[in-house]
Amino acid sequence: MRNIGVDADRLWAATMQMGEIGATAKGGCHRLALTDEDRRARDLFGDWMRAAGCVVTVDAIGNIFARREGADPSLPPVMVGSHLDTVPMGGKFDGPAGVMAGVELVRALNDHGVRTKAPVEIVAWTNEEGSRFSPFTMGSSVFAGQLELKDAHAARDITDPLHGPTVGEALGAIGYQGDAPVGGRRPACYLEMHIEQGPHMADEDLQVGIVTGSFQSRYFVATITGEQAHVGPTPMAGRRDALVITSRLVLEIDRIGRAYGADGRSNAPHIELFPNVRGVIPGVVKLSCDVRHSDARQLQRMEEELRACAAIVARESRATIELERYYEFGPIHFHPDMVALLRRTTAELGYRHRDILTVAGHDAVPLNTICPSGMVFVASRAGGISHNEKESSTRDDLAAGANVLLHAVLARAGVVD
Amino acid sequence: MRNIGVDADRLWAATMQMGEIGATAKGGCHRLALTDEDRRARDLFGDWMRAAGCVVTVDAIGNIFARREGADPSLPPVMVGSHLDTVPMGGKFDGPAGVMAGVELVRALNDHGVRTKAPVEIVAWTNEEGSRFSPFTMGSSVFAGQLELKDAHAARDITDPLHGPTVGEALGAIGYQGDAPVGGRRPACYLEMHIEQGPHMADEDLQVGIVTGSFQSRYFVATITGEQAHVGPTPMAGRRDALVITSRLVLEIDRIGRAYGADGRSNAPHIELFPNVRGVIPGVVKLSCDVRHSDARQLQRMEEELRACAAIVARESRATIELERYYEFGPIHFHPDMVALLRRTTAELGYRHRDILTVAGHDAVPLNTICPSGMVFVASRAGGISHNEKESSTRDDLAAGANVLLHAVLARAGVVD
Repeated sequence: MRNIGVDADRLWAATMQMGEIGATAKGGCHRLALTDEDRRARDLFGDWMRAAGCVVTVDAIGNIFARREGADPSLPPVMVGSHLDTVPMGGKFDGPAGVMAGVELVRALNDHGVRTKAPVEIVAWTNEEGSRFSPFTMGSSVFAGQLELKDAHAARDITDPLHGPTVGEALGAIGYQGDAPVGGRRPACYLEMHIEQGPHMADEDLQVGIVTGSFQSRYFVATITGEQAHVGPTPMAGRRDALVITSRLVLEIDRIGRAYGADGRSNAPHIELFPNVRGVIPGVVKLSCDVRHSDARQLQRMEEELRACAAIVARESRATIELERYYEFGPIHFHPDMVALLRRTTAELGYRHRDILTVAGHDAVPLNTICPSGMVFVASRAGGISHNEKESSTRDDLAAGANVLLHAVLARAGVVD
Repeated sequence: MRNIGVDADRLWAATMQMGEIGATAKGGCHRLALTDEDRRARDLFGDWMRAAGCVVTVDAIGNIFARREGADPSLPPVMVGSHLDTVPMGGKFDGPAGVMAGVELVRALNDHGVRTKAPVEIVAWTNEEGSRFSPFTMGSSVFAGQLELKDAHAARDITDPLHGPTVGEALGAIGYQGDAPVGGRRPACYLEMHIEQGPHMADEDLQVGIVTGSFQSRYFVATITGEQAHVGPTPMAGRRDALVITSRLVLEIDRIGRAYGADGRSNAPHIELFPNVRGVIPGVVKLSCDVRHSDARQLQRMEEELRACAAIVARESRATIELERYYEFGPIHFHPDMVALLRRTTAELGYRHRDILTVAGHDAVPLNTICPSGMVFVASRAGGISHNEKESSTRDDLAAGANVLLHAVLARAGVVD
């Protein structure tokens, strides 16, 4: 099986064709979960997989499974997947490239007439990004039993809180609330290719990153309560302007991330003002924020510093700041068997590689709780920028990652001679 | 006519009854322009005025005119008015108290069987606050010929930009797009009572403030462009987070207001992030901001300082900040005849008073461009807080202001013996 390989041009063409759905002026992709663009991307994926001889099923949270049957259908499947949704004005690679690696992998197996012992399933998970519906990695989390289906269905569109649908309503509207039950089965293993989303691999001229695990992240909503008042007659001295107070906190959050070395991260990307109108000093602000680090002790210190800064800002501003931790993520460690398999496969194929940690969540994270899971990164060009229209990768980058997946799948699914 | 006066209890009861429409849990009022609450407030005002013998007409921007005919209908009317809309979670006095002073004034004239020579019109102007539709003082500005009717009709709901109606649509929905043409006539004069919205009158134990003019205000939209990127893998050092950059600017804006003495004001009350989702460093922020001062030279320096700070923040953050001035207000000087009349009337009635400037816009400002206009303030309790549920005034505060208006109206409209 050493001479089998993916068709790099076909993989690139598929990725570009998929990227046309929701394409933006600057070469990116705007395809939020469960929108009509997402539906069209799902339709295209399903069409391609059926054309490749797969049986396509959709579960109740909208995850799409394209099954290439194995010689022994009773064996648990080897799964390969990622997501088709993007962030607003995002790139063409974050998510879709991993699904396209799965599409190409099946086409390559067909080209070479390879029959695997275990079934192979290519999966497109619902709402990995969490941009439109919270939480992120929604479909894979329900599949892995980490999130209740009813809670996922009840999540409401956060980009349109006044009129937007719930996940359940949006699934119905695009025709992707399937009949299959969600989860309740353990794949043999799960493999995912993803663009790095950072600069390191390109900087070091690497082809494949073996993702051994993740940073640890803690997510908070800060509620900053000042005092609503008139913008005009209210003297400056008496004010407790919730946006001014929030601005102090945002700068502290940004400072904290920079104070903990190269692996420190901190963010405050989402804000809601009340009332957010021109004539009124805002009284209340809700700010989503997070701290991340590769080292658990450092992360703990970051959270403590965040809490201390919030208390100081609140006291100095005569305001209250409540900090509610709504989510925690990692540190996760991908299954050692999968890490070893991906390292070995990559080395045998001769790709320049090293181990790497992910700073972001991925569908492989919830999957790792129910079956041995592993990830490879491919290089992110344009300085590693991601969640941006400029996000970029190359034909050869994608082919390297997809080839590693192909050979890892053959090793795990087994081949009928 | 010296022994005629308003009924303080009736005025207070009307103000409280009007405040029930959109009443909030903490004693405030939430009645945004052209909502169903606004419709109910308009209906109540119209019912009351018809019951008091007035002819009620509505113009094409929804301004409501309740006319008490004069002995000589050919004379231009003496107008008294204010607005019924409030900011989100506002108070019961800002706006409605001025309209209720007009209602009570007509009732008092009826009680005493007074027949005026000139007609008296009580007006409820559309969308003074500008919280839901921009610009503020919309109805009075169209009436005064300072804003085109078609531009006002085209303004879209800024609290619900995805699905909200235009002013024209919202007027139609609540049945208040009237048949009367807007403006095209000059009242004999215009008078308005308003709550001070600041602490000075209460602090100085004053009953009536004679508003001689206004502060000067300049309004801007700052567009802060950084770089959209992933919140996780993007190293802190390379970031150009538009909210972090905006936070620096907000603190500079707040500092500027404090640096120009007791009359300095600065605000940044309204913000829009793109994309404003949890997984993405914001790339662009639009921030509405303003500077205000009683002294034109100081205001000019404030604007220059704002522009200099924006340039420094942009350069230090490797970002761009565009500052577009979208509106300018004042300094206005109310007509000297009206200021003199209101001073004299207040003195004759024996109220403790002084001259005062307004820091906010009011419907009397556009009216002053087409006819002699004047305003009185009544004391604002609870530390002068306004645009807040806690905004408060008293029965005696309102009665004092309404009595001044009543006697000023008699002086200007003339009485038939």
